[in-house]
Amino acid sequence: MSGEDAPAQQQNAVDQKQETKPTEEPKTETESAPAAGAAEAAATPAATTEKVPEEEAFTYRALVLTGYGGYDKVKLQVKKGKPVLKAGEIMVRVKACGLNFADLMARQGLYDRLPSPPVTPGMECSGVVEAVGEEVTDRKVGDKVMVLSRFGLWQEVAVVPAAHTFLIPEGMSFEDAAALPVNYITAYMMLFDFGNLRPNQSVLVHAAAGGVGIAATQLCKTVKDVTVFGTASATKHETISEGGVTHPIDYRTKDYVEEVRKISPKGLDIVLDPLGGSDTHKAYNLLKPMGKLITYGTSNMLAGQKKNLLAVAKNWYHQFSIHTLSLIQGNKSVCGFHLGYLDGEMELISQAMDIVLDLYKQGKIKPRIDSTWHLEQVGDAMRKMQERNNIGKVVLTTEPMPEEEKKEEPKKEDKKEDKKKDDKKKDDKKKDDAKKEEKKDDKKKEEPKKEEKKEEEKKEEPKKEEK
Amino acid sequence: MSGEDAPAQQQNAVDQKQETKPTEEPKTETESAPAAGAAEAAATPAATTEKVPEEEAFTYRALVLTGYGGYDKVKLQVKKGKPVLKAGEIMVRVKACGLNFADLMARQGLYDRLPSPPVTPGMECSGVVEAVGEEVTDRKVGDKVMVLSRFGLWQEVAVVPAAHTFLIPEGMSFEDAAALPVNYITAYMMLFDFGNLRPNQSVLVHAAAGGVGIAATQLCKTVKDVTVFGTASATKHETISEGGVTHPIDYRTKDYVEEVRKISPKGLDIVLDPLGGSDTHKAYNLLKPMGKLITYGTSNMLAGQKKNLLAVAKNWYHQFSIHTLSLIQGNKSVCGFHLGYLDGEMELISQAMDIVLDLYKQGKIKPRIDSTWHLEQVGDAMRKMQERNNIGKVVLTTEPMPEEEKKEEPKKEDKKEDKKKDDKKKDDKKKDDAKKEEKKDDKKKEEPKKEEKKEEEKKEEPKKEEK
Repeated sequence: MSGEDAPAQQQNAVDQKQETKPTEEPKTETESAPAAGAAEAAATPAATTEKVPEEEAFTYRALVLTGYGGYDKVKLQVKKGKPVLKAGEIMVRVKACGLNFADLMARQGLYDRLPSPPVTPGMECSGVVEAVGEEVTDRKVGDKVMVLSRFGLWQEVAVVPAAHTFLIPEGMSFEDAAALPVNYITAYMMLFDFGNLRPNQSVLVHAAAGGVGIAATQLCKTVKDVTVFGTASATKHETISEGGVTHPIDYRTKDYVEEVRKISPKGLDIVLDPLGGSDTHKAYNLLKPMGKLITYGTSNMLAGQKKNLLAVAKNWYHQFSIHTLSLIQGNKSVCGFHLGYLDGEMELISQAMDIVLDLYKQGKIKPRIDSTWHLEQVGDAMRKMQERNNIGKVVLTTEPMPEEEKKEEPKKEDKKEDKKKDDKKKDDKKKDDAKKEEKKDDKKKEEPKKEEKKEEEKKEEPKKEEK
Repeated sequence: MSGEDAPAQQQNAVDQKQETKPTEEPKTETESAPAAGAAEAAATPAATTEKVPEEEAFTYRALVLTGYGGYDKVKLQVKKGKPVLKAGEIMVRVKACGLNFADLMARQGLYDRLPSPPVTPGMECSGVVEAVGEEVTDRKVGDKVMVLSRFGLWQEVAVVPAAHTFLIPEGMSFEDAAALPVNYITAYMMLFDFGNLRPNQSVLVHAAAGGVGIAATQLCKTVKDVTVFGTASATKHETISEGGVTHPIDYRTKDYVEEVRKISPKGLDIVLDPLGGSDTHKAYNLLKPMGKLITYGTSNMLAGQKKNLLAVAKNWYHQFSIHTLSLIQGNKSVCGFHLGYLDGEMELISQAMDIVLDLYKQGKIKPRIDSTWHLEQVGDAMRKMQERNNIGKVVLTTEPMPEEEKKEEPKKEDKKEDKKKDDKKKDDKKKDDAKKEEKKDDKKKEEPKKEEKKEEEKKEEPKKEEK
């Protein structure tokens, strides 16, 4: 199945410029033939007709960020041409993909590790090896793998260096495998490399119901007598408590600093901070002597669908800057972590992954899937995550979407673990109703999309928006 | 031996205002009677004659910082009055004291953990328990202990909380015991708590021939395949190489950043930075992804005997301040450490000390004493350390100084480990000659001391120099 002439980098594969329609519009769109490994091409635009027929026969669906902005900026397109593998690379038939906050930041143009649009986002996926390039000795066709990459994995076929893949352990589903790499490696390296977590220590986990939050909580519980403070809205408290959070805190109604101080007056050993801005200051002040603040994002910058200049400016204004003399006098540590900037360090990442997979095999950790969405539903999947309505990981599946399902509902949601959650479901229903209200508003906003698009295309040509 | 009416804090004990003469002046001065635990008082000034005779009978020599400035600001005085022990405290007959950079900073008014003068400096000592207060269950009269304190240990008798003392292991000399606590706890907590040092990592140790430098090197060698880069002037390279430094770098003739990059192009896992200022920037840039910079001082501020405003200003100007976004994008950690600000955390310190003492008992670490000086020689001891002429720890002994030794020579210097060091000795001799030259210059400067003193006394009254 290895290709010949097409460019090796999947993001360079020939893009079909004609975009498939977003899910809100009920028109028919191209679906791939599921098992065959090749999809029917959408109507081929004139620009690509010079390609040779064999290449055209190999097509696959891909999500493409077409410009910075709202959820509708990520379009489902069909790429054409079988990728050529360079030495050390493998081609993966993707089964499931993980969503991460960096993907949301990237959509708004707030993440500089993604090339400028058009580009396929996606830092992690799972799938089956379909072809191996030269010099690849440790992967073979048919291997089930999970993949880490700087970007480019939200598509049905991905070409990646074999060194960026990890064998999926026996019994792990493709969804779990797509949910695991970014969140668990991030949580592991923060807690055990920078954080040096030891028994009897205390940790504050923000967004404890998010992907990293749940991973961090599970990893904390692998160490004896670690106290986990976790922020989340009240409806999620039961779930995160069951997951290992010792003290859930509703950050929407309470001052989390006060809540922590009530229980732990001296402060904390470790604070994981995905928020940035003024929350980083609070985190720093909550540290005990020898405490470690590990900041790994600026999610406070994300306000609304599109880049919110006020939120960005506010975040920058409050962004934490620390003087070494303050660190010395406080005996404190401030660390920054982002897996997206660590892609040259596969040895470090592999070491962490080995340990994480061992813990999985021992049953000590397990990704919690919030919901799984078809590629066509990526906008709703992103919305669920950005609006903090998820508990656990939001996952995309490359399985074709049955015609009758082409609604806004996720493929599966909150599957399993549904016992004794009747009360919660009522809450969720309320939340969902609220969400539908919001969506109506969004749709109104999305109607003038065509005009917007033209403007974006103008902007995209000079690629000024790239940092 | 417990006293009754005198103030409990040793620094509050009645000071004999008449200062003993600095060592440069060959006049006779009061010496304590060595074994008896009480010293002949110096001529008692009129101001203290109202004290009751029993208290006056208990006297002891103490070094006192009388004002901020040069080496001569630390005077040997006689304190009078038996300290009263509070619950939990013990009285220690001090045998030896360690010198630390913080003591040098304190003398110049650059260390805010020392109360304003007059005050007895000294963060560590060793000695024998002479009395125990109420509620002390784990120390008894006769125990050999080492002591950590914020200040106040450079004297013959020290009253400290029992919790700030550690039993000296069998076979460890008082000198080694006075040399161990600050340097080894500092090095241990930096490398293994903040640094999370693991096999195959690389560490840059500045001032590798200093007390912390030697401790850090020895501790690095307890971990498999750790590469140690150590800066020191060329004459010290042989010694630090024998002590475990893999790559000694002469920072006086070479750019240490370039030297490190030649050998380790990707950079380092850990940098220990006692320098501050622009060297902290260099350290940060030398870090690998997931690297840790641990800054623990601002010795660049120390230029000359007295506070050098230019050096202080330059250091402040270049002082490192880091933005969290830079940390995130670099996947780096910046930590500040200073044992002097950790005195409320005896549990953490005790844990570290237990491990350090275990390593000592296993023969894996051993303090290296550069030289031992009498209390009368404290100025020369400080000078040796400040001028970076030491290899290892500079120690004070409370043993009385024989009349014939009342010169500038240390009590013992570079004792032991003298095999196959003939070449080195020649170098040292050259260095000593050079030092004598310098000292001649200093003496010239010190001659107009009496005039200076008057001015200082004026300044000391309003205590404006205290931060």
